Amino acid sequence: MKDNIHFLTALVNNCSGVLTRISGLFARRGYNIESLTVCGTENKDVSRMTIVVSGDEKIIEQIIRQLEKQIEVIKVEEVTTEESVIRELLLVKISVESAQRTEVMSVCNIFKAHIVDIDHESLVLELTGKPQKIDAFLSVISNAYNVIELARSGASALMRGDKGIYEDKTC
Amino acid sequence: MKDNIHFLTALVNNCSGVLTRISGLFARRGYNIESLTVCGTENKDVSRMTIVVSGDEKIIEQIIRQLEKQIEVIKVEEVTTEESVIRELLLVKISVESAQRTEVMSVCNIFKAHIVDIDHESLVLELTGKPQKIDAFLSVISNAYNVIELARSGASALMRGDKGIYEDKTC
Repeated sequence: MKDNIHFLTALVNNCSGVLTRISGLFARRGYNIESLTVCGTENKDVSRMTIVVSGDEKIIEQIIRQLEKQIEVIKVEEVTTEESVIRELLLVKISVESAQRTEVMSVCNIFKAHIVDIDHESLVLELTGKPQKIDAFLSVISNAYNVIELARSGASALMRGDKGIYEDKTC
Repeated sequence: MKDNIHFLTALVNNCSGVLTRISGLFARRGYNIESLTVCGTENKDVSRMTIVVSGDEKIIEQIIRQLEKQIEVIKVEEVTTEESVIRELLLVKISVESAQRTEVMSVCNIFKAHIVDIDHESLVLELTGKPQKIDAFLSVISNAYNVIELARSGASALMRGDKGIYEDKTC
């Protein structure tokens, strides 16, 4: 994960084409999306997007202003690692001979990762944690074993305590 | 989670505008995206998308054919719950008075959820599991407590064993 990474959380109206318009905004202006997740919330008319972008403070401010202008965007906020719980999910499949399994299990124990599938020559590992922890685990794993394929969920974030991003704007 | 839910995994070229074109395809044709995640892979030129869509078999076949026609799409496959490890991450913040915390911890233990933030009047819970498990947990939690906000990562999927979706097409 790069140094100048920022996490944006946006509540958007769950209407057709909202993802196209928002991702189009990023593409037109050349903003770099590191990861994006969009999913339903407790309100079926509202979706929550977590967008991970790289760029300096000025670019992030620009992005937030542009997002706020979109009619479908109810609210957008930058969340920081200090104020928020930021988590990501990793699934990674590695080539492992049966003799190496114990060794893999030790690494998994250290990172609190789980083995979720075993085959003759491969294992699927699952890990949830801060994006930096996922990076560290992947770095250890890919140095020691052959990574066949991997899927990361992209970051999801909630602010700690009574802070949060709520729908106080009627659309 | 609805009954006619399908999980699609696509490897796409990591180029500007790919997300806009793919989400635009869904919007134009009125396909319903339940969740979408896009993130980097072991190859920096390639991103992996996991798209959860609802629809009957015929619509899913149509979607796959349409996706395969896109120049940026390297490969797309439907993954099934039998053949794959499908996982999702949930963060949920609930209003809880301190006297109720033990009760919440019991529910968390049953689902193997974790409490990741404690405030005077709220808790943030984290759970990783199959989307159905996330639904079940959310149903229990939202019946018993006031859900302040939640973030779901959307599904991530890897095929079990030696099956998988690899880049065997040069672009």
